Amino acid sequence: MSLTIKHLIGLHGVPSDDIQTILDTAKTFREVLERPIKKVPTLQGKTIVNLFYEDSTRTRISFELAEKRLSADTINFSKSGSSTKKGETFKDTIRNIEAMKVDMIVVRHESAGVPQFLTRISKASIINAGDGRHEHPTQALLDMYSIRERLGKLKGLKICVIGDIAHSRVALSNIFGLQTMGAQVSVCGPLTMIPQNIESLGVKIYTDISKAISENDVLNVLRIQLERKAGTSIPTLREYHNYFGITAERIEKNNKDILILHPGPINRGVEITSEVADGPYQIILDQVTNGVAIRMSVLYLLGTRQ
Amino acid sequence: MSLTIKHLIGLHGVPSDDIQTILDTAKTFREVLERPIKKVPTLQGKTIVNLFYEDSTRTRISFELAEKRLSADTINFSKSGSSTKKGETFKDTIRNIEAMKVDMIVVRHESAGVPQFLTRISKASIINAGDGRHEHPTQALLDMYSIRERLGKLKGLKICVIGDIAHSRVALSNIFGLQTMGAQVSVCGPLTMIPQNIESLGVKIYTDISKAISENDVLNVLRIQLERKAGTSIPTLREYHNYFGITAERIEKNNKDILILHPGPINRGVEITSEVADGPYQIILDQVTNGVAIRMSVLYLLGTRQ
Amino acid sequence: MSLTIKHLIGLHGVPSDDIQTILDTAKTFREVLERPIKKVPTLQGKTIVNLFYEDSTRTRISFELAEKRLSADTINFSKSGSSTKKGETFKDTIRNIEAMKVDMIVVRHESAGVPQFLTRISKASIINAGDGRHEHPTQALLDMYSIRERLGKLKGLKICVIGDIAHSRVALSNIFGLQTMGAQVSVCGPLTMIPQNIESLGVKIYTDISKAISENDVLNVLRIQLERKAGTSIPTLREYHNYFGITAERIEKNNKDILILHPGPINRGVEITSEVADGPYQIILDQVTNGVAIRMSVLYLLGTRQ
Repeated sequence: MSLTIKHLIGLHGVPSDDIQTILDTAKTFREVLERPIKKVPTLQGKTIVNLFYEDSTRTRISFELAEKRLSADTINFSKSGSSTKKGETFKDTIRNIEAMKVDMIVVRHESAGVPQFLTRISKASIINAGDGRHEHPTQALLDMYSIRERLGKLKGLKICVIGDIAHSRVALSNIFGLQTMGAQVSVCGPLTMIPQNIESLGVKIYTDISKAISENDVLNVLRIQLERKAGTSIPTLREYHNYFGITAERIEKNNKDILILHPGPINRGVEITSEVADGPYQIILDQVTNGVAIRMSVLYLLGTRQ
Repeated sequence: MSLTIKHLIGLHGVPSDDIQTILDTAKTFREVLERPIKKVPTLQGKTIVNLFYEDSTRTRISFELAEKRLSADTINFSKSGSSTKKGETFKDTIRNIEAMKVDMIVVRHESAGVPQFLTRISKASIINAGDGRHEHPTQALLDMYSIRERLGKLKGLKICVIGDIAHSRVALSNIFGLQTMGAQVSVCGPLTMIPQNIESLGVKIYTDISKAISENDVLNVLRIQLERKAGTSIPTLREYHNYFGITAERIEKNNKDILILHPGPINRGVEITSEVADGPYQIILDQVTNGVAIRMSVLYLLGTRQ
Repeated sequence: MSLTIKHLIGLHGVPSDDIQTILDTAKTFREVLERPIKKVPTLQGKTIVNLFYEDSTRTRISFELAEKRLSADTINFSKSGSSTKKGETFKDTIRNIEAMKVDMIVVRHESAGVPQFLTRISKASIINAGDGRHEHPTQALLDMYSIRERLGKLKGLKICVIGDIAHSRVALSNIFGLQTMGAQVSVCGPLTMIPQNIESLGVKIYTDISKAISENDVLNVLRIQLERKAGTSIPTLREYHNYFGITAERIEKNNKDILILHPGPINRGVEITSEVADGPYQIILDQVTNGVAIRMSVLYLLGTRQ
């Protein structure tokens, strides 16, 4: 039960056996989270640095909790209050941190490719917590875990990712991971939000949300990232909601067996109504809980790899 | 020795047995703080999130030390660098944090009522570290502990809270807690700083500081909160000091047996002179030490409640 | 193996036996850093507060890692989000922190003398992590450790500190520490960057970098601190580089046995070329690793002192 990968940069190219091992190991940690004592001594004496160059609440806290529950020592580093303003290069910052003998680095960065770059300059295990529009592999892994938990499998399922596919690292990681596990992935959204070459990945494109709902088993509803200028791709939020918003009416009319995922944070009334976000079809808070278990699994498997 | 309360939102309505249990348990932890090894394994494997939406040094550090000395895992969350700016509702932020399986949430917020609201949306134990003008229960508990330590009792004592009562959560928590324990609470300050209906709580009003000093056993001197526009309630800080400042002269003339408390941070020369703040009547730094013991007690009792 | 000093404020006046003990103990911790489990239980139950009033990445992380690897509980305090803006005096802030029963305080401050001041108002052990232009003793200790590791000794070595000596706390700590250990210290830089009275400390002045390279065993190359207005002492960075920059050409021409140190962060192409900073003469990343070991040593020796 040892991974072939040394780092988790993305799900592109990760073998299905590795994904299977991560999901299965997460199941064990998911049970630990229900215990009164949610802590195991597995990574005692290991040091993990959380390098968050982009603001984040849930992902940072989720990783930090996972690290502490594995008994690792954690150091948090954010862009503010750092030496980057002293003119030090990013490479020198990383080589310095690595020289302090850290075992793993969890990194979030606004630029795609930064985690990959780190694997070349550091001996530590690198875990990508989101890099630009590239990948966000632990999010996709927790999505897969949550789907498998509810539907018992991934193979053969039809999963549609809804929203701003072009600017989404979550979409890309979902596509790579789910396809590897034998699911069929499609996307749905305004054409301005869908990359032109996505069909070459074997991904079907929907522009009709009703059809997307009726023909799929799972919807993964992305948030419209107001803070990343999604506004330039759509006329108004209201119009987006009218055409692509997930409403109870649309679900009940097209597919009452659908399972709804959302990576959060939710824009209520934009990509999803409050009725759906709090309703019976969704498993949004399960995803959050499972996220801690998935991160414990990844940290454990990479941190104890021989 | 188990509490009837599940959360600590305020001292209003908390039974005297619970307060007694918290104070007695704090005494044990106060002794732990004098040991070379100030740590007990009581909350090992429990996770506590410190949600500070308002800046704070001493209260945050005091809670964090209490948590670490109980061997809990702690996660700090402050408003800056969070997802609130991504348009997520406060309720969704909290439900997400809770879904990560945290056991307790310590919350400070500028709006009264937020901790109470949290008890409705989260399964975690909620501890109020100060909410708007409402309550700051651990401050009042440490005040009570410090008074009892010096004077041997609370019942029958006369305690006057001095300053901006109208804007003070410390004053309100003191009134509720001390009255429950059988003390007589009064207030003293300019009438612009005293809420009109306070007498309905059985609280006597002084406008003459000399009389307040001579007729009470304890003064709890609030800080004039310059950063919260106290200035609109008083003409000048000098005038406030002239009428209500606690000076050595006033103490020696009116009551040499008085005990002086102050929740900090001190405005030297405004509500209290340096001579008094560093002098023999006050127990200001004892309050700080006792604050860690009180918070250990509250966290322990709520965290191990069946 | 117990130190005579209770605090580490600077290396001025610290006896050679104490420095020897710190360096020898660091060697043990340096070995711990190569183990899979880099943690020892030595300071379990001790509380260390990191008071960083000046931004810092590497020094803060280095101390925090050292503390966690000694199993101490750590509290971080930075200027932002603190009560200093509430008008509290620095002295009151410190006395409050101390009243919470902390064992050690690591302090960085822009004003020289602050750590010394803390020793007078606190019972905790104080460790200076850099105060204004005064001292940065753990930096000098890690420099000495790194030199001794490579050259087998300190006694009799010739070491030249290059750069803005007048504004450098690193230079001063190097001079005091190295001289105590029997090394000969010189400085080299533009005369506008060299304090007039430095010769009275027994320190030779070079203004010719080639001569400094050829006559010394070790160069400690300071960074030109752009953020501290070094610009007022030199015409341009290019001119500084032309006259004092450490280049491969200068080394190869004058002294191929030289050892190059740099405290970081590096300004590549200003005080040192990338070729030298990444080349065979330098031990810059060794210094970073040794820094964690030195800080573990200092914290351990002061934290377990009877």
